[in-house]
This record gives sequence, C-alpha cells and structure tokens, in this order.
Amino acid sequence: MLTYSFSDRGHESLYEYLYQCIRRDIIHGTLSPGDRLPSKRSFAKHLNVSTITIENAYAQLLAEGYIDSVPKKGYYVADISWDMQKTESPAEAGSPPAQNNGFAHASPGTAKEECFADFSSSQTHPDTFPFSIWAKLLREVIADSRAALMENPPSGGILPLRQAISGYLRQFRGMDVAPEQIIVGAGTEYLYGLLIQLLGHGKIYGVEDPGYQKVFWIIQGSQAACRHIPLDGHGIRIDCLEQSGAEIVHISPSHHFPTGIIMPISRRCHLLGWAAKDDSRYIIEDDYDSEFRFMGRPIPSLQSIDSLGKVIYMNTFAKTLASTVRISYMVLPMHLIQRFYREMGYYACTVSNFEQYTLTRFLQGGHFERHINRMRNLYHSQRDLLLGCLRDSPLASRISITEEDAGLHFLMEVDTDAPNAAIMERAKAQGLRLAPLSQYYRQGCPAKEHTFLMNYSSIHPERMQEAISRLCRVFEGLPLAEGGSK
Amino acid sequence: MLTYSFSDRGHESLYEYLYQCIRRDIIHGTLSPGDRLPSKRSFAKHLNVSTITIENAYAQLLAEGYIDSVPKKGYYVADISWDMQKTESPAEAGSPPAQNNGFAHASPGTAKEECFADFSSSQTHPDTFPFSIWAKLLREVIADSRAALMENPPSGGILPLRQAISGYLRQFRGMDVAPEQIIVGAGTEYLYGLLIQLLGHGKIYGVEDPGYQKVFWIIQGSQAACRHIPLDGHGIRIDCLEQSGAEIVHISPSHHFPTGIIMPISRRCHLLGWAAKDDSRYIIEDDYDSEFRFMGRPIPSLQSIDSLGKVIYMNTFAKTLASTVRISYMVLPMHLIQRFYREMGYYACTVSNFEQYTLTRFLQGGHFERHINRMRNLYHSQRDLLLGCLRDSPLASRISITEEDAGLHFLMEVDTDAPNAAIMERAKAQGLRLAPLSQYYRQGCPAKEHTFLMNYSSIHPERMQEAISRLCRVFEGLPLAEGGSK
Repeated sequence: MLTYSFSDRGHESLYEYLYQCIRRDIIHGTLSPGDRLPSKRSFAKHLNVSTITIENAYAQLLAEGYIDSVPKKGYYVADISWDMQKTESPAEAGSPPAQNNGFAHASPGTAKEECFADFSSSQTHPDTFPFSIWAKLLREVIADSRAALMENPPSGGILPLRQAISGYLRQFRGMDVAPEQIIVGAGTEYLYGLLIQLLGHGKIYGVEDPGYQKVFWIIQGSQAACRHIPLDGHGIRIDCLEQSGAEIVHISPSHHFPTGIIMPISRRCHLLGWAAKDDSRYIIEDDYDSEFRFMGRPIPSLQSIDSLGKVIYMNTFAKTLASTVRISYMVLPMHLIQRFYREMGYYACTVSNFEQYTLTRFLQGGHFERHINRMRNLYHSQRDLLLGCLRDSPLASRISITEEDAGLHFLMEVDTDAPNAAIMERAKAQGLRLAPLSQYYRQGCPAKEHTFLMNYSSIHPERMQEAISRLCRVFEGLPLAEGGSK
Repeated sequence: MLTYSFSDRGHESLYEYLYQCIRRDIIHGTLSPGDRLPSKRSFAKHLNVSTITIENAYAQLLAEGYIDSVPKKGYYVADISWDMQKTESPAEAGSPPAQNNGFAHASPGTAKEECFADFSSSQTHPDTFPFSIWAKLLREVIADSRAALMENPPSGGILPLRQAISGYLRQFRGMDVAPEQIIVGAGTEYLYGLLIQLLGHGKIYGVEDPGYQKVFWIIQGSQAACRHIPLDGHGIRIDCLEQSGAEIVHISPSHHFPTGIIMPISRRCHLLGWAAKDDSRYIIEDDYDSEFRFMGRPIPSLQSIDSLGKVIYMNTFAKTLASTVRISYMVLPMHLIQRFYREMGYYACTVSNFEQYTLTRFLQGGHFERHINRMRNLYHSQRDLLLGCLRDSPLASRISITEEDAGLHFLMEVDTDAPNAAIMERAKAQGLRLAPLSQYYRQGCPAKEHTFLMNYSSIHPERMQEAISRLCRVFEGLPLAEGGSK
C-alpha cells in the first residue's frame, strides 16, 4: 500500500501534506492513470491518521481532477496526460460560483428601484468593508507620501503595489510572478479593453457558454469576433474550441461562473496543449473569486502550471474588498508585457495613486489576509443561514441545492412547471430579485430550467428569514413539474 | 456711436458687461460683419468709463473671434455667419498652451530617470495639491456615507458628482448641461475608448495636426481610422476636414495644444455647420485647460453654442487637481447619452466611489473654485518667474516667446542653426527635458523648427534660476541661424 512519512510535514496540516504527496506522485508518474487508491479506512489505518484526514485529501484531489471517484468502487488516478486528442464526453456540470460585478443597468442618472433582497447581486455589503483600517491607512499615506502621491506612475501601476500583489500571489496562490508582469487597472472591464488592443482586434475570441456575459459584450463592443464555446462537466470543450477557430479563450477554471465547475487538471493540461499549438493562441484565466473557497485548499491557478507563457491571469479586488473600489490587475507573460510597454505605454494607469498606495499598505500589513479570512467566515455563515432558512421552509421539499462550497452563491433548482418569466415577475412583486441560471446560456440551457443563482453576499442576516418567507410566497400555488415532486 | 447703459450690470465688472453687450449685438446681427467699432479712447469717453475697460472688452472679443483688429485702422466686427463654403486661408498659428498628461513611457516597473527640471511635463507639483482639505473631506465621506460608498453607481458615475459638475459648468463655463448627460471616468483616455465604441469603430476620425498625439494613438489602437487634419491660424481647416472624409473630429478650440490657437467664433460656426451636414458627424471638444487663462474671461465652449447636439464635451481634473487622481468626464448630447445607457450600460464606472464622493464635496464646498484661483495665481507667477529668468539671461537676445497668456506652458523660439536632436541631447546632459514643437506635427512642421514648449507647472520656483542657467549652457556656443540674430 502507498506509504508516506509525515516527518517532513512542517507546519502543514496532515491532510494537506498528504494531498501534496499524492499529487506529486501523480504528476511525476509514480502513480499512473487508472491506479486504484487505497480505501479511506485502510489507508487511514496504514498511515496511522484519522479517516477524516484521508477524506479531505481525496476530496481536494478530486476537486482538482487528479483522481476520479467511481461509486461503490473507490478512487482512481485520473489521466492527466497532455494528449489533446482525447475525446471529451459532454456531461452534467460539476460545481458552481458567481460574478455579477453588481453593475446597475441604470437609466441616465436614476437610482435603482427599491428591493428587499437581491439574490441576483454579489455587491459587497457595506458593513463588511474595513472602513476604520482603510481610513487609517489613507491618512498615513497622505501624511507620509505626498510627493509619491503626485508622481505619475508607470502604465502598470505603482511598483510597491505590484510588489505587494506579487507577494500575495506567491503566498496564497503559489504563483511565481514578477512585479513587472502585473498591470493594475480600474476594473477588469478596462483591463479586457487593454488586452484586446494588445492581442489584436482581428483575433477570434472564445468565451464560455454559459458564462460571464459582460466579457462577451466587451469583446463584441471592441469589434473583435467572439464565439460561444459550450462546456461539459469538466469545463470548456476543447473539441468545440478547436472547431470555433478561436485563438484566445477566456475561462474561469478555478470556479466557473455561474455553474461552479472546477476544471480538472486533465482539462487544464489539454487547454495548455491547445494553446501551445499556435503562437497566436492565449488563455485568459479569470480567477475572480478564488479567495472564497470554503472547503479544502484553494484550487491552483492555470497560470501556475503554464510554462510556455500562454496564460494571462486576471483578478480583482472588487469581490474581496468592495465593488466600488475599482482595482483589478492582470499578469501577462514576459513577452506580452514587453510588447505592452512598447506599444501601449502611453496609457496612464487608471487607478488613483491614493488608492494604489492605500491598498499597498493594506496588503503589506497583512490586513488583506485578515479581511479575506473574516469575509470567508462571514460568507460561510451567510450561506449556512440561507441554507438553514431554506431547509426549514415549506420550499424544502421542492428544491435541490448544488455548488454550495465556494464563491458567493449556490445553485437552487426548484421543482415547478411555471415559466421562469412568471417566477421572476412574482419575485419582483415580493421585492426579491432572482437570477435564473438559463439567462447565462447563449445557446439554450440544456436542462435545469428552474435553477436560480442564489447570491447571499449582499443580504443582511436580519432580512434573511423574511426574504425566504417571501421566496416561499413566490412559489406558493405554482404547479409542480409533471412527474411529481421530490 | 454705440451706446450701452450700465444700469443692468449687476455684479459683473464693467469690461465684462460691455463685452457681453457687444457680443450679443454681433450675434443678433445688430452689429454687422465689417462694421467698425469706435476707437477705444472715444468709446471710453462716450460711455464714461476708463480706456482700460474698453481695451479689456475688445481684447476678449478679439480672442474669441467676434471682432478683428486691423493695425492702425481699428476694430471691425468679424463675419460669424454659418456659411460653410468660405475658403480657409492657411496662416501662421496664432497662440499656444499644453497637455502632456504627464504619462511615463516607463519600461516595465522602473522609475523615471533623474531629471533636474522637466520643461516637457505638465505634471502637478506635489506642493500644490490641497492635501489637508482633501484628507478632511475623505474623512467626512468615510464617516457619513458608508452605505453610499459601497453602492455600485450608474455607469456615468454617482449622481451627486454629476450634479456638482453640472453646477460648475453652469457657473464657470456658462454651459447648460443636465447631470444625466455627464459620464465620469478614470481619465480621458478611458473615456475616448468608450466614445469610440459608442460612435463606432467603423467611423473615420479626424485629429488636429499638430495636436495631442495620444488621442491619435488611442483611436488607432481601437482599430478605427484616423486622419490628421492641418490647422491654419484659426484652428482646424474645414476644407481639409471635408476632404479627409472624417465623420468625427477631435479639437481643443478654447486653447489648442500645443500651439495655443483660440478658435475664433467664425471657425466654430463653420465647424458646427460642417457637423450639421450629416447625421453621423460629431465634434469632440477637449476643454482640458480652460481654467488656466490668465487674461480676460474664459473662452466659451463650443458645446455652449451647439444647438443641434453635435458636440461631445470633455474635461479632466488631471490638470486642475492632480494627474494622479484619475477623474475626467464627458458631456454627451441627449440622444447619445440615451444610446450609451441602452447599449453600453453594462460598463461599471471606473472611478472609485471614495474619490467620487470626496470630489463632490470638494466642488460643493467651493474648494475647487478657490483651488483653481490659487493655482491660476501660482502658475501666473511661475510663468512670470520663468519669463523673468529668461529675460535676464544671456539667452534673452536669441529667443522669442509666444502664447504666454494661458495654460501651463508657452512657446519659446530659439535663434539657432543646430538641429533639434542635438539640442535635446545637450539638454539631457544638463538634466533638462525639452519638448520641441515639431514633435507634435505629423506632416512636417511648417516653420518654427527651433520652437520649444516650456511647461512651468512642475518646476519648483527654487530651481528656476538654476534651470535657466543650465538652459543657457545648452545653447552656449551653438551657431545662430543664417541671416543673423534678433
């Protein structure tokens, strides 16, 4: 049986150390595709650890696609080879999260209409922003850095902020990124615009279907061609990507929006293989909410396993800090960053120096890390509160919940025959906003007609019970689906 | 003789009131093109005011193109008819100012090289930023507006800021603009990007030659066609604009960069007439430094005389507040703003709420007005200091200065035969940065080979004397132009 010594474990938890040992053996080929892993109980006894430790390690490997689970048989090492010819079998989506970016489709100058609870928005709740510490750091910056505040930064942003982001990525995402590779900008939308200019308007871009619609709009708005690429249960389908003629593909592999699929390592490798086939091919990795995974370790980024300079990594502080503080960043491969400064160095950085320096201190002082931990706990308990309210409600028998382990939303499928439009209308009358999963599909939602994204980040805990009571009234009297209830 | 009663003058100064009376009569046709205005002295006696009052009123009318001055003959009402067929006679440029936006063509992550005095940059001097009041307002905003700070604003920015900008434009630029027409964004470059998407990538854009090069780069970078349109002494040439096939033209009529030409009213009318000829035609008016006119009233904006919804007005707080606080705005005609929200409402505003709310208070509390006045005085004395240093230097006999009445730079023509490249090299060796006027021309600089933009906004007064001593050393020993010295 597999044997690992825990003597070199250091500060890591048992499960995490074990996960890394097995992962390393799979990557190095010591464990081959198809190899069966020991059963949890026997492996636990063998290594003299608890079953929970084994369970957690397996769950992490499973989530990242290093192993497969065959019901009633056990766990098997997955095929993570770089073979790109492997056929992808379309399957049901695996697991889901959310990125609304909470923008308002406002008519000129008007405020949003009154709404009791907005399950469609992932806008940050005002109470969660670290106002005191932010104000304190701002004061310090204004007191200490007057000259620096007035100096025009390079296009990519002030160097100390890029250094702090580089350090953060190294520590929390295991990414080895030079500060010079980072470009800071006022929102990912703005960065997409820069990127399209850099990569070329004449290129064909591919986006996930379902996916984050705004990316499609921005690419189309920039007059570049954009294709929708369908997913299977492992993420974007490489065969469809090949057929589409797309040269650049935008994905969120660590936590797909809105389905929550975590792209397994095999698909990631296929995707890198796809990119390697042509110089003009690139992958844009949107890692928008990797910080909010409730179970296990964060999923490693695609960028961190890319040795060919094919991945452009994007992330934002809009989710982790506040959507109204407009700071996002992207990491470009070295050859692209050089081209950026050569061809587009005339663009001024769009983020105010005041906020760049404040965020730098926020990162340097460990405040960001503490804030993320607080937020993760908060969202975790928000999720539990919402799940609890649903479980105790009359709806409980009509709904099934999936993808509740990460991000700021889960998926709720409701057993009903009523059309989504009618449900949305009834929700509106109750002061609720709902986002049906189907609205994120371009080419028709394969199933899950009555599945809704349930964002919980913006809903005040005191309103949760009442919000769910109203939700029950939305579905009250609506017919069940033919074929009966759950 | 012309007679005006001063009984309805209210709070306006005598010259300003007089200017407005004459201007009104010219616009309404009471005074016809070619009419001779009374001589200053006789007019002053007739109205029982001082000659200075008449002089100031005439100077303002002259600057705005309502009257012409014929040496030794007097002042005549100019032809401001909307006739677009009138031939434009190419002439020497009239008057010059500056817009560098102080961006750094930085190589990845490196800081700018050491420089003793940078006459090429209009970067804000750190000492001039109102740190105390800005910090105080930021504190107040954080204390009072937590919920508002976390609420995603409409794409155009928070309503209170747009209201404050609308009020400012009404009071100081005589513009009647609804807050709904205003879009706030992180820098004019970003706003150009939005605008090109709104107006169409397929359109042909025209920019001034010479002009603000970055606009050309941005338009080209967006894959839209861009043509350079030459100027004459009154600004952009309408005949060349017609020939170019451009549908959208970018100009800075109140203070052209870098020549400083103020577009006279006749040319403005021609330009509006040009735009009126086709639905797809628009004028982008860049009003980037209208606040820094040292003599007379500010020049009215083109937007304020546009009754057909053809002018898109742009301005920025980068010049007036700090280039590192990224807040600019544009004013769209009603039909365009409606299209913007319909087609592009998915774009989130790129300016942080913290800075939007702080700037709102800064405008509302009258701080901006006071700051502008302080800055205008400061730049005025900076200009006088620089002019004084030059006058007292050995260079005095070799230079001629033009366009010193507005903006943050003037033009300095040096009598020399040396090529500009050699001069720049020598300047660099002295720790100086110079920007030759010729570098802003695309199609060859018609004359003025040795003319330099002299930005004085970023140079510390204590360094000015030494900077000029170094400048003298740059030209020391360089040959004079053939044909002798001045």
